[in-house]
Amino acid sequence: MAADYFIPDVRALARFTPDQITKTDCFRSERLFTGINCLARGQSQKVHTHDGADKFYLVLSGKARIVVGAERRELSAGAIAWAPAGLAHGIDEALEDSVVLVVMSPPPGGGK
Amino acid sequence: MAADYFIPDVRALARFTPDQITKTDCFRSERLFTGINCLARGQSQKVHTHDGADKFYLVLSGKARIVVGAERRELSAGAIAWAPAGLAHGIDEALEDSVVLVVMSPPPGGGK
Repeated sequence: MAADYFIPDVRALARFTPDQITKTDCFRSERLFTGINCLARGQSQKVHTHDGADKFYLVLSGKARIVVGAERRELSAGAIAWAPAGLAHGIDEALEDSVVLVVMSPPPGGGK
Repeated sequence: MAADYFIPDVRALARFTPDQITKTDCFRSERLFTGINCLARGQSQKVHTHDGADKFYLVLSGKARIVVGAERRELSAGAIAWAPAGLAHGIDEALEDSVVLVVMSPPPGGGK
């Protein structure tokens, strides 16, 4: 969790592990959460659903195949995938080492 | 507003005008909003406060001096500035043509 209100480059927080996706929290309030998911090439995030929480992904670097509902797209830096509450979503496969900003409201696991 | 759940490159939605900052909505639910603010070099967004809404900026391209509370920082692509409810924030000056993702919960002007 950041100590103050600024992160100079969120991509600098990226960590990759050979075994699995890594997640790093950036900021969190009772309403809003943002963090990064880092996936080495070939890694994935299982398709899942959040009841009562809206979420989106913004690809910061790399390239990943992202699923929302019945659609899946290969997305690169600058792409957004929006997953409203109740709609299944996930990262099917990172096609390159990828850093993906995740934003969610309300936050996973409740507020601060 | 996007027709579906994906935007291939949100930076492609950027529009600059000589007179003022432009704002383009991307996605909105009753809880969560995201869009982009585009500022030509020299443009600004007045310091303001949202009561009861948390917000953050993510710089997508360019360079801008962003204010949160008593702090101001020159931020480039990948930087996040987090402005919790009640804390004054704004874009003091775009030092280059800049595209800034804005995320807010709850959305400005109420939900969908």
